[in-house]
Amino acid sequence: MKLITVTMIAAMTLNASSLVKTAQESGLQAIPTSKVELMKLIDNPKNNITDEKVALGKQLYFDPRLSKSGLISCNTCHNLGEGGDDGIPAAIGHKWSANPHHLNSPTVYNAVFFDAQFWDGRDPDLEKQAQGPMQAAVEMSAAPEHVQAVVVSIPEYVTEFKKAYGKNVKITFEKIADTIATFERTLVTPSPFDDYLNGDENALTAAEKKGLETFIGVGCATCHNGVALGQSMNMLNVTATYKHMSVGDFTGNEYGMVKVPTLRNITQTAPYFHNGQIWSLKEAIVEMGRIQLGTDLTDEQATSIETFLGALEGRKPDISVPMLPASTATTPKPDMN
Amino acid sequence: MKLITVTMIAAMTLNASSLVKTAQESGLQAIPTSKVELMKLIDNPKNNITDEKVALGKQLYFDPRLSKSGLISCNTCHNLGEGGDDGIPAAIGHKWSANPHHLNSPTVYNAVFFDAQFWDGRDPDLEKQAQGPMQAAVEMSAAPEHVQAVVVSIPEYVTEFKKAYGKNVKITFEKIADTIATFERTLVTPSPFDDYLNGDENALTAAEKKGLETFIGVGCATCHNGVALGQSMNMLNVTATYKHMSVGDFTGNEYGMVKVPTLRNITQTAPYFHNGQIWSLKEAIVEMGRIQLGTDLTDEQATSIETFLGALEGRKPDISVPMLPASTATTPKPDMN
Repeated sequence: MKLITVTMIAAMTLNASSLVKTAQESGLQAIPTSKVELMKLIDNPKNNITDEKVALGKQLYFDPRLSKSGLISCNTCHNLGEGGDDGIPAAIGHKWSANPHHLNSPTVYNAVFFDAQFWDGRDPDLEKQAQGPMQAAVEMSAAPEHVQAVVVSIPEYVTEFKKAYGKNVKITFEKIADTIATFERTLVTPSPFDDYLNGDENALTAAEKKGLETFIGVGCATCHNGVALGQSMNMLNVTATYKHMSVGDFTGNEYGMVKVPTLRNITQTAPYFHNGQIWSLKEAIVEMGRIQLGTDLTDEQATSIETFLGALEGRKPDISVPMLPASTATTPKPDMN
Repeated sequence: MKLITVTMIAAMTLNASSLVKTAQESGLQAIPTSKVELMKLIDNPKNNITDEKVALGKQLYFDPRLSKSGLISCNTCHNLGEGGDDGIPAAIGHKWSANPHHLNSPTVYNAVFFDAQFWDGRDPDLEKQAQGPMQAAVEMSAAPEHVQAVVVSIPEYVTEFKKAYGKNVKITFEKIADTIATFERTLVTPSPFDDYLNGDENALTAAEKKGLETFIGVGCATCHNGVALGQSMNMLNVTATYKHMSVGDFTGNEYGMVKVPTLRNITQTAPYFHNGQIWSLKEAIVEMGRIQLGTDLTDEQATSIETFLGALEGRKPDISVPMLPASTATTPKPDMN
């Protein structure tokens, strides 16, 4: 009995080692354990991550006063307790507006690993991205002047901006978005899969390793690769291929292409696809096999891939609810209309 | 110089001691420092506070899936980062519904000290109160069956309920509300004022002590007393007396009376009054003097009282954002309509 166990372990180790190689050759990358290596991936040379910016950005991320109504914060649609999104098919914003293209809110966790933001990939980084939802009439619906006026009216925020950027800082809408983005850059979630790629052979179960093999074997890693396990723009005739494309009018970017979302924490971010039309992860896997790989995955394959995706559930940073500084007489009043 | 300082300190100490007595005689009570004494005030003998219930109640408090839309949690209107309320005049809920009576969301911090909940005081405790907003069509708009079905569909919640209440627990809507209330019972915020009443003579500045004297002297403590500094139902002909009563149709309880809100953290919970029509704390103080005390407070008196109220800004518990367990195939889907 002991002999068998040892043999089994030896075989598994052998498999695992070659599997790590296969994964790496397929372009799958771990979140590095070394802080220096991680910083290379998440830092923005034009807007360096500092503790002061992160602390301030976190407050702003949670502050609903940045919205026109005073009710919607970044965290409303990118809820850090809910896998970093809102758990509904398509975003709902100011005045209960539905997203006009019926687009699903993507998770903010690990969004830093993308070099293209939004479903059509139109923005290059989180700094630029953060400007969008604050202004969108169907999201936070705030004019840049409103956002700026709120922050400038609150002395604690002004003090923190000076600490973060120096005494002569000009608190602009762009600077506010930069600061929120700096906080978002820290929202990375290392998972058992990362531990495995980083050398812990036992971080994945045998079933998860088999799932990883299947994931690579059937071709999922062709699009879902890199640190985000997602990232490239995907060749996709959006109007024709998705089974559930009847919902929403999204046609992708100018080439009819759509961003490949991250698979990290995918077990916590249902419903799936750009239009949030599939609630079951397994069903989503089967659908992707059909559309993207031209393959009818067997039930066993789909289940195995789903098992692997469970190992992408990451360890979330410990985030305390920030206590927001009080409004003052000059803080713009909420406007519900 | 030294002599003068010592004399001044002696005088202040004398004043302070007699001021503490005056405060106590006026019915003002500190949040006790002793845990045993505090538990006497916040525990519910029918629903004892335990760590397991608090941890679970906290998750449920932050879980928007309890609402019909999947978008609104208790924390949406009683935002723990925003002084425990929403910072807008009147509550906005499901489908952007305005509160039909234009009622302002009260803070959840220290709400445990009230023996009457809601502006008309209709519910006796937080356990009963918590059932209201979940069901109200203009708030979370969820049928009790929905709330129950969401919780029961999530295995992690079921496990936690068993831990909290025993293996044979029946997870009912009432039990869920009880659990949320248990978390809310822990949301107390000791302030410099409490430190002062509890014996730290230096916890209040001279100006704050003077403010406290004024507060008691002009009669504020007649209604704003007890641990909550608020609590009794106030004799009030709601339809006639408030300067800003033109907004909303709230007529108080069956006797035309309205609950006296807590003054704890009042610097963080603008706008003020049951209809949220006054943004300036000083203006609110003057208005209360006029309506409730029949007095035109001088600017000096109003400023002095405002200074004292600043000393009621309490130390908030450190609350980490709870990571919510994922939905399952049987979790009711969000309904935006």
